Amino acid sequence: MPLRAMLLLPLLLTALAVAAAHPLDPLSAAELAAVRAAVLASPLIPSRPLTFYYVGLDEPEKPDVLSYAYASGGAAAALPRRAFVIARAGGESHELRVDVTASANATVISHAVHTGAGFPTLTLEEQFAAVALPPSHAAFVESVRRRGVDMDDVLCAVFPVGWFGDGDGEPRRRRVAKVLCFVASETANFYARPIEGVTMVVDLDAMAIVGYRDRVTYPVPKAEGTDYRAGEVGPPYDGPTPAPGVVVQPEGRGFHVDGHVVRWANWEFHVGFDMRAGTVISLASLHDAGGAPRRRRQVLYRGFVSEIFVPYMDPVEEWYYRTFLDAGEYGLGLWAFPLIPGADCPSNAAYIDGHYSAQDGNPVDARNMICVFERYSGDVAWRHTEAGFPSQLVRPDASLVVRMVVSAGNYDYILDWEFKMSGSIKLVVSLTGLLEVKETAYSHTDQFDGDAHGKLVSENTIAVYHDHYVTYHLDLDVDGTNNSFVKNTITTITGDTGTNTPRRSYWTVKREVAEREADGQVDLTASESPSELAFVNTAKKTKMGNEIGYRIVPSGVATARSVLADDDFPQRRAAYCKRQVWVTPYAKAERWASGLYADQSNGGDDGLAAWSRRNRGIRGEDIVLWYTVGIHHVPCQEDFPVMPTISGGVELRPVNFFERNPLLRMKPPAPRQEQILVNGSCAR
Amino acid sequence: MPLRAMLLLPLLLTALAVAAAHPLDPLSAAELAAVRAAVLASPLIPSRPLTFYYVGLDEPEKPDVLSYAYASGGAAAALPRRAFVIARAGGESHELRVDVTASANATVISHAVHTGAGFPTLTLEEQFAAVALPPSHAAFVESVRRRGVDMDDVLCAVFPVGWFGDGDGEPRRRRVAKVLCFVASETANFYARPIEGVTMVVDLDAMAIVGYRDRVTYPVPKAEGTDYRAGEVGPPYDGPTPAPGVVVQPEGRGFHVDGHVVRWANWEFHVGFDMRAGTVISLASLHDAGGAPRRRRQVLYRGFVSEIFVPYMDPVEEWYYRTFLDAGEYGLGLWAFPLIPGADCPSNAAYIDGHYSAQDGNPVDARNMICVFERYSGDVAWRHTEAGFPSQLVRPDASLVVRMVVSAGNYDYILDWEFKMSGSIKLVVSLTGLLEVKETAYSHTDQFDGDAHGKLVSENTIAVYHDHYVTYHLDLDVDGTNNSFVKNTITTITGDTGTNTPRRSYWTVKREVAEREADGQVDLTASESPSELAFVNTAKKTKMGNEIGYRIVPSGVATARSVLADDDFPQRRAAYCKRQVWVTPYAKAERWASGLYADQSNGGDDGLAAWSRRNRGIRGEDIVLWYTVGIHHVPCQEDFPVMPTISGGVELRPVNFFERNPLLRMKPPAPRQEQILVNGSCAR
Repeated sequence: MPLRAMLLLPLLLTALAVAAAHPLDPLSAAELAAVRAAVLASPLIPSRPLTFYYVGLDEPEKPDVLSYAYASGGAAAALPRRAFVIARAGGESHELRVDVTASANATVISHAVHTGAGFPTLTLEEQFAAVALPPSHAAFVESVRRRGVDMDDVLCAVFPVGWFGDGDGEPRRRRVAKVLCFVASETANFYARPIEGVTMVVDLDAMAIVGYRDRVTYPVPKAEGTDYRAGEVGPPYDGPTPAPGVVVQPEGRGFHVDGHVVRWANWEFHVGFDMRAGTVISLASLHDAGGAPRRRRQVLYRGFVSEIFVPYMDPVEEWYYRTFLDAGEYGLGLWAFPLIPGADCPSNAAYIDGHYSAQDGNPVDARNMICVFERYSGDVAWRHTEAGFPSQLVRPDASLVVRMVVSAGNYDYILDWEFKMSGSIKLVVSLTGLLEVKETAYSHTDQFDGDAHGKLVSENTIAVYHDHYVTYHLDLDVDGTNNSFVKNTITTITGDTGTNTPRRSYWTVKREVAEREADGQVDLTASESPSELAFVNTAKKTKMGNEIGYRIVPSGVATARSVLADDDFPQRRAAYCKRQVWVTPYAKAERWASGLYADQSNGGDDGLAAWSRRNRGIRGEDIVLWYTVGIHHVPCQEDFPVMPTISGGVELRPVNFFERNPLLRMKPPAPRQEQILVNGSCAR
Repeated sequence: MPLRAMLLLPLLLTALAVAAAHPLDPLSAAELAAVRAAVLASPLIPSRPLTFYYVGLDEPEKPDVLSYAYASGGAAAALPRRAFVIARAGGESHELRVDVTASANATVISHAVHTGAGFPTLTLEEQFAAVALPPSHAAFVESVRRRGVDMDDVLCAVFPVGWFGDGDGEPRRRRVAKVLCFVASETANFYARPIEGVTMVVDLDAMAIVGYRDRVTYPVPKAEGTDYRAGEVGPPYDGPTPAPGVVVQPEGRGFHVDGHVVRWANWEFHVGFDMRAGTVISLASLHDAGGAPRRRRQVLYRGFVSEIFVPYMDPVEEWYYRTFLDAGEYGLGLWAFPLIPGADCPSNAAYIDGHYSAQDGNPVDARNMICVFERYSGDVAWRHTEAGFPSQLVRPDASLVVRMVVSAGNYDYILDWEFKMSGSIKLVVSLTGLLEVKETAYSHTDQFDGDAHGKLVSENTIAVYHDHYVTYHLDLDVDGTNNSFVKNTITTITGDTGTNTPRRSYWTVKREVAEREADGQVDLTASESPSELAFVNTAKKTKMGNEIGYRIVPSGVATARSVLADDDFPQRRAAYCKRQVWVTPYAKAERWASGLYADQSNGGDDGLAAWSRRNRGIRGEDIVLWYTVGIHHVPCQEDFPVMPTISGGVELRPVNFFERNPLLRMKPPAPRQEQILVNGSCAR
């Protein structure tokens, strides 16, 4: 369990002196402190101790935010500032709304007790407390001794238990988690050295071990070959080394960060931070040079990672329940780490901090959670060679990247939003970090008899098959709030073409507009799946009469969908992972694909699949795209001891949104190379 | 038709003084000149004029090249240098092999006359000659006058006729092409202003117009809005401009170019250039730091773009035949253009020149055909955050890109090979340039009645639906010559898992090894298609017992396959485009997927589909992967007047090729930023 320094802001109230917040700004440290004070002062929850599980912005109503952001003429009116809180006290999950418009006078304005299934995201503090229990648990001491391991070398981590039918109909189940342990000596990579066979169950409210099992003993894999730190990986490769390279911006950065609003080229958007979702992109809009005066046109009201479902594929006792919901159970913002300048993000990046609430409600100042940088990939934005005027016809590409890195235990997710001058937004998930491995008695594939449920990546070490499903909530508002979802299918026409030519076939495009939610679910891997998906604004057209839209372009290395049985318990909790694409009508409360209370959720009446069972109308409505980037991970030896990054994602690309290629009017970002460079080095 | 300066080398024989060529080096200017002299001096073809259509390296036998490249101990013996020539004389296509091992004594060593269907790649010179014919053709003069166009503004281009059943059984058909014309005044983008309805047929051997048709008259689209040159596209966007940025390498480049051999990090490979294929990558191998002594391990014997099939989807008289085979009909090397430093490739790139033969056999010196550069994308090669040692755990990525740009008429193909330290090779096709458009009487979609066969992208301008199929020949030799093709399928297991846990399903991997060519054909868009494809070396295993392999990872935005009817004529010529993946046993002569003579080919007995009908064994053999990157292009207004780049490709990724993640032992390329940068600018 990583130990994160929690820096309490020493002078909370000074933060109040800054300018009025944008209505979508995350709660400031001062606001978080005010929320804490209001909740603790409220008579609505008399029980103590009271523990904070989630504190985040309770955003204003969408029409109010749109008016604020796009109102023409005159200053936009400030909107109320409110927090949504999940706290636990007296064995119950409480939901509160707190008005912090005036921080000095913060007030609880609503309170409810959660009566359904599931629990809130685990706090960091209770995980620290839970992993401190095993060393003083007698049975564990004996298990460790019997394996010849020194307890000082043991390090433990918390694993959610999932839900497997137990307590169905009893929503007030115990809030428990499993604790598994590893040998952390002689390597940084303790995940590679599990104490396989030992499973503990901790009651998180009582903070006590309530279950213990030592089922099977395997040799703990050796430390040799598991480390990934320089100096611990053997002699370095003695061949040529790639040259160091760095991006230089002789005129400085080209983007502007004003509070949480970022402006770059034709883009403007708001960057927020949430304990559960991490980065939240809002109000992304494009300035269109095509008309006069310059117009700001809506593209995306809100986008964030709603859930990451990671089911493992070994049904054995120590593994069957490993079916993680990383956002709902762990929290992506909670497990985001400060980005390392020059490594996680290039040296030309700027950084945005985050704030969240500790378990005691005090604000935590999380530095460098998000970085923003201009990318110069060496690619070409557009080009053409034609005789006679060759020098003017190539435009090098530049784009703007917004990045967060989440290290949810062993895995690292690099989550990028890339904004392009063409109007495209690319969402990229890059996976790296450490594999979750299982011990085995074997050291060669020939020794296996039957399904190993993974690949032998090192001696006594199986990397278990698993999936990653990263689900985005994308409230596209293409040139306005009301949109439709269009499925286009390439269709072959054969036979007499009626043209008196010898051509015998061609394809054309068959268009279907989704009427209801059931029509909005698409399995991208089905052979009959549409070749093109788009959100279009049916109320507006280009001068040529084409529908104004955005195409949804999957990057096909990551279009896996869940193949678990529909009645399997993890599948019921993440039922939405059966389809990569869902479309729902906008509803402010529908944010978390796995439901608000994901820990021990039972796939009941909250979550994307449940909401969509109502089969609401989605044609010409304010609709939301849910897109899942999916990867079946069959590990290989190259993934050990640390994985080379693999990436997948989806691109949102304008299609007849502009009257013409918008790049043509963008001034080229060509550097004045001759002034700064001599053979690729800084000039003297 | 672009006019390329053809620079004849003034001092051909001085080139002979250089060191002995690598056996896969393209023919030098001196060797091309020697080939010309030998062919013209040979008594085997007495007819004149004699015209050169193709001159390229006739590579030595593969075992000899492998011995040369990988022989351990002692200097590799020089191999004979031979040219393969296609020349036309007396109305026939002649094939010659010329030995140029001693350039001063070059000798024709074989001669044959091609008796089958099809003709060689068109020369640039005959296209220049053909487009000069229309202005003096009386009927065309009248057609132009009637449209109110000034003949001085007219510019024409050559379009292959394809094959539509005519002359079947008569292989000695006339060698003809169609010539279409455009209005080139007031815009650089003459493709946007076709003189629709007028089609001419030119006999290329007689160099005369032999067919004329003026079928229909539409208004020529206005020039306004069609140009893409700065200063011609309206006022620039008045918002913020992205900052200029440039890569600086304070220690210079990290790669070494020795003749045509490139060495970078753990990679070594040979870069060739061919009139038809353009870039040819050979003998790509990896130095593996995993053992001692350092080993050089084979990955790819040969890779190049074999064909680009671009069928349009309008069956009307002026469009039905537009079913281009860009490599076989036009030549990718012939239509590659000098790369613009700092624009086509970043300022830290190095350049490789090409040579090819003009129609008269004289060598043409084509500068800057290929660039090589290190890319610093801002991405992360691997990372992990764990408590206690955060500073060492992020490795920024660097890769090596080899790029060529082909402007085959209106379209521009940016063809990248990206080599990664992880062992991956990414092949990326980026499409940009100009759409091929059709005139229409209409200026609004509401005016259309029935299928427009494309999208209205501007007034009177339809961008016709079409496909791009870029087919790579990839002779993978994974850690040795003999490989097998493995198809892995994710398969769900349901019911009792036998583990006494409540889990009801999981997936595992079902493995199938392809025995014969029919098993090696894969449609990636079929729902039952395997989830993982790999080439493996069945004779070698890792220490853990895993098969040493390379995975084939499609980038899913570009996995379209042809949907034309099997009996349609263009589909017969490019039958292989029905499957994205084919695997064949290696045969030196099997290079061109559409056959050696692609112009007017009839899909007969040459080409990938024809070869594979023999259904040869491919298990544990020296096998070749043919991979097609496919895009259905439904144009939109953003694609006009010039297309923003769209990209797709395929990644060849090591899978159990290494015992461990090979990146761990690579020295990190982190720049000494503090020495060169102050706030992203060069330090003073």
